Amino acid sequence: MRVAVLGGGQLGRMLALEGIPLGHRFTFLEPGPDPPAEALGTLVAAAYDDADALARIAGGADVVTYEFENVPAASAAYLAERLPVLPPPRALGATQDRLAEKRMFAHLGIPTAPFHRLDTAADLDPALAVTALPAVIKTRRFGYDGKGQIVARSPESAAAALDALGPGLIAERFIRFERELSIIAVRGRDGNRVFYPLTENHHRGGILRASYAPARRLTPALQSAAETLAGSIMDELDYAGVLAIELFEEDGRLLANEMAPRVHNSGHWTLDGAHTSQFENHIRAVTGLPLATPRVPGPAAMLNIIGELPDAAAVAAIPGVHLHLYDKAARPGRKLGHVNITGPDQAAVRASAERVWALLPGEPPGLPESRRG
Amino acid sequence: MRVAVLGGGQLGRMLALEGIPLGHRFTFLEPGPDPPAEALGTLVAAAYDDADALARIAGGADVVTYEFENVPAASAAYLAERLPVLPPPRALGATQDRLAEKRMFAHLGIPTAPFHRLDTAADLDPALAVTALPAVIKTRRFGYDGKGQIVARSPESAAAALDALGPGLIAERFIRFERELSIIAVRGRDGNRVFYPLTENHHRGGILRASYAPARRLTPALQSAAETLAGSIMDELDYAGVLAIELFEEDGRLLANEMAPRVHNSGHWTLDGAHTSQFENHIRAVTGLPLATPRVPGPAAMLNIIGELPDAAAVAAIPGVHLHLYDKAARPGRKLGHVNITGPDQAAVRASAERVWALLPGEPPGLPESRRG
Repeated sequence: MRVAVLGGGQLGRMLALEGIPLGHRFTFLEPGPDPPAEALGTLVAAAYDDADALARIAGGADVVTYEFENVPAASAAYLAERLPVLPPPRALGATQDRLAEKRMFAHLGIPTAPFHRLDTAADLDPALAVTALPAVIKTRRFGYDGKGQIVARSPESAAAALDALGPGLIAERFIRFERELSIIAVRGRDGNRVFYPLTENHHRGGILRASYAPARRLTPALQSAAETLAGSIMDELDYAGVLAIELFEEDGRLLANEMAPRVHNSGHWTLDGAHTSQFENHIRAVTGLPLATPRVPGPAAMLNIIGELPDAAAVAAIPGVHLHLYDKAARPGRKLGHVNITGPDQAAVRASAERVWALLPGEPPGLPESRRG
Repeated sequence: MRVAVLGGGQLGRMLALEGIPLGHRFTFLEPGPDPPAEALGTLVAAAYDDADALARIAGGADVVTYEFENVPAASAAYLAERLPVLPPPRALGATQDRLAEKRMFAHLGIPTAPFHRLDTAADLDPALAVTALPAVIKTRRFGYDGKGQIVARSPESAAAALDALGPGLIAERFIRFERELSIIAVRGRDGNRVFYPLTENHHRGGILRASYAPARRLTPALQSAAETLAGSIMDELDYAGVLAIELFEEDGRLLANEMAPRVHNSGHWTLDGAHTSQFENHIRAVTGLPLATPRVPGPAAMLNIIGELPDAAAVAAIPGVHLHLYDKAARPGRKLGHVNITGPDQAAVRASAERVWALLPGEPPGLPESRRG
């Protein structure tokens, strides 16, 4: 099959690296220069709403998927009239707007932080009545990696956040969560579903720095709760592909924070820590193959390489290390690659992770920050 | 780095799939049409002795390696004057001629079947005096997959084999081995060496059909014997990269049959059955990175897909299956892909392997044939 991917970043690159062995060829639609996926398929260098480019995709591919969810709805709709677009475009609608996303969670009975829409000054009082203070004020669209959000600790700072970011905002209660977890869930075209174990995520400056899988102290009850909520979302959307859901753990319960209708940074450990990766299962799902049950034989860690590249030879010398570079030019704050670490036990993984951290720029993230997704 | 690979077949394809995540880009020199590696790098479509093509490789790459050992010695020498060519060209010389190969084994004290050169009728008596009957008469150059060899059971059939195949032959004693094993060994530019566990190989019609790793009844003594002989060859050749050695097990000892200075079909299971594959370790070796110690957490099987493609959905539905297709047109006897199978224990792997065999064309190989490498 020819698989077209909307977006040509590192997620597209890894989808192709895992999809090519299944016999597929890839096309990427990507407006940016020198995309990381370029070496792995045909590049259509154009905007996501470029009519000629969309026609070329529609004419030459067997299925369309994406590695970037902020694709214009009209583009997805145009393609969906002509060939399968998976995950389904309605999943884009549900994830591009944080308010729609939270409302869907609520509709499905999935706990979230209390939230309220915030568009004008008239919304401030009712919003803060729901969220209390501190509140997190976020743009509803196009926020990522902690951008487009402000923590308001007084009514005045909430009003200032509305002025700075608005309109089109959502206010949420600031959750003093113990930790952030995520679940990588996959649903096939046939409706079958598989789930990876909950992953524990550590951020710094709003950017994911490290994931540990399976999450520490993972109980069957916690895993089951995450699978139930992820399954209900996927069924609601008649989903096919990987769905990643970020969760807060607070007093032993899970609150859904946000989701991404694509493979996700917190699932990169599956390339080496699971017998079938999130990337292969996504490709299996969108091309109509049966899903592989994720088999996770031991602990794994994933450390992002951000801003500058470490000494590859020094990293490669550390036991259990798997280097994944994205072929991107170094730039402060940019994700350039990641290091997966596997080992026979948690102590071995932790020991290698500490050695890798010592080679990466910036401080290692110790305990999770109170990062607001 | 830009890695140039002489050859653009499935081995080059898998080298690139494992080398791209390390941050490298690939160029392939390949004379044949539609090479499997084409989607993963820049293709130079030319003969291995094409002067312009060799100059292009020499000018644009940081290191040269190969996935095909029958490269003209003059081409390797030309390149080696201009940039690193690894494994070293002398390893090509030692493996392109079965007589030189066997003489090197003998020089290093590595047991082999008794052998003798066979060029003219005058060589027949001294050769058969060494080999006894039955003898295997083989071309010294360009034999593969059982081609270019005849089993002679009488002096008359040995003479007929000489007429049919000669000159430039080698005669070897026909070994009634219990099984064929292979070892995948790797040596880094720094001289460090790592070894994968011995693999048990089953052939049919001279073509590898299945590998099981680690080999059944693998003792530390047998593994150690294989590592010692492989290590002595690699040190002798000042080797860098993967070296695959095919071995016969006869009465509990190992006889070296032949070797390949490249990644090898009997090491394909390492893509899913080891934490670092033969392909990644080969790229680490030739680019000067430290090698990764192979960690093999459980049993694995590799079944070749030969001649025609099975129903991918049916294969993918079997637990523990990893599909690796080479994007080649189907043709009788052609290797089109392979299926790796992993699982928690030997019984699970065997059960899945039997289900995969039922979907592949041809009969499954039961016990190993008396195949002569």
